[in-house]
Amino acid sequence: MIRDALAHDISSGRLRPGDKLPTEPQLAARFEAGRHSVRRAVDALAKAGKVSIEQGRGTFVEEAPRLSYAIGKRTRLRRNLLPQGCEVTGALLGANMIIAPEPVREALNLPKGVKVVESRRITLADGMPVAFGTAWYPADRFADFVERRDVLGSVTETFKSYGIDDYHRAETDFYARPAKPDEAKTLKQHSDLPVIVVLALDADQDGAPISFSRVIWASGRVKFTISGQDDG
Amino acid sequence: MIRDALAHDISSGRLRPGDKLPTEPQLAARFEAGRHSVRRAVDALAKAGKVSIEQGRGTFVEEAPRLSYAIGKRTRLRRNLLPQGCEVTGALLGANMIIAPEPVREALNLPKGVKVVESRRITLADGMPVAFGTAWYPADRFADFVERRDVLGSVTETFKSYGIDDYHRAETDFYARPAKPDEAKTLKQHSDLPVIVVLALDADQDGAPISFSRVIWASGRVKFTISGQDDG
Repeated sequence: MIRDALAHDISSGRLRPGDKLPTEPQLAARFEAGRHSVRRAVDALAKAGKVSIEQGRGTFVEEAPRLSYAIGKRTRLRRNLLPQGCEVTGALLGANMIIAPEPVREALNLPKGVKVVESRRITLADGMPVAFGTAWYPADRFADFVERRDVLGSVTETFKSYGIDDYHRAETDFYARPAKPDEAKTLKQHSDLPVIVVLALDADQDGAPISFSRVIWASGRVKFTISGQDDG
Repeated sequence: MIRDALAHDISSGRLRPGDKLPTEPQLAARFEAGRHSVRRAVDALAKAGKVSIEQGRGTFVEEAPRLSYAIGKRTRLRRNLLPQGCEVTGALLGANMIIAPEPVREALNLPKGVKVVESRRITLADGMPVAFGTAWYPADRFADFVERRDVLGSVTETFKSYGIDDYHRAETDFYARPAKPDEAKTLKQHSDLPVIVVLALDADQDGAPISFSRVIWASGRVKFTISGQDDG
């Protein structure tokens, strides 16, 4: 069936989000079918949300549904992704203690030459990568952050173990850009799809910066939501 | 000079953000220069922030600086872009009164078959497009919104003229995806650069939805900032 063949082109990535479908005469020729059958198949795909027909411009492949990730004062990854019924897992890619690189030093408001703990992690939802990135913690306060997190299982519990019962997102910056080849590979995302780069600064109850992170998100798998209401 | 030639490749778009620079031997061959000269030129570009050298992976073209756009409870376009010293202008692309399309009807929480005012606009910073999109307003309250806005000059003033002295951003959703050909053309952005789609719902003092919008942002020209503090 024409409909199934086109749906397969989309699910297999042969046709990608934003791609223009071939014209009706082209599809009719490809499937050796009448234009009426082609139109019916395309209409069915449009009703299923797989393509959108835009008058005078053509028919375009729609985005696949994305996981919704809430950005708020109390941003917690697991809490934000779990309600959608997907299994969220994470893995440590590597850790170091280093002299704070300049942008990290500035964000965390540290003196020159001070050390930070650097932790590189990847996050998966139902086994597919959704994001990977690096977080930096001031080493004077959080020298064994990576080891504690490994035992305690979450950032929230780890901060608690240092006496920080509450912390909040002080600032979030983000932008989108084409993926670098390695990023697309790490995220198992088609190389034509962009990434969203999120820079985030968290602070403790007293407003002191406790972590800065730079995370690369798979744009094809995630959308972000900011609620006007504080979710804390 | 090698440095100037590469900088020109970047500013002209021949090399684009995320592109990998040719290897040192390749650049040496192209410029008929020694590898030492090539390395010095690339280092200078890295110091100028035009490329980033990533150990073991290669050298990549950096993003151009972006305008910063704040997303908060009191999101106001002009107020958010003006502090950066750029001249923000907007133009009406078209307006209609239509039966609310289903996603708009749902967002604005309207009964079926009710009409909305649809306004299509483009926003420019220093003459370059940064975003274009569509906003919908319930026609029962805001039948002449477009005409009033044309006279009053801003959304805030227009809402005031309807007795709404204060309104807030109730919800913001966003994701990134490749640009459709027409979007890249409207934004005068290279077709390889993604767009950021922002869906926003504004509400009045009583929490009643007053506008829903879908705006396509030029990812190459804008980054977004969410402040933990309410900016109202």
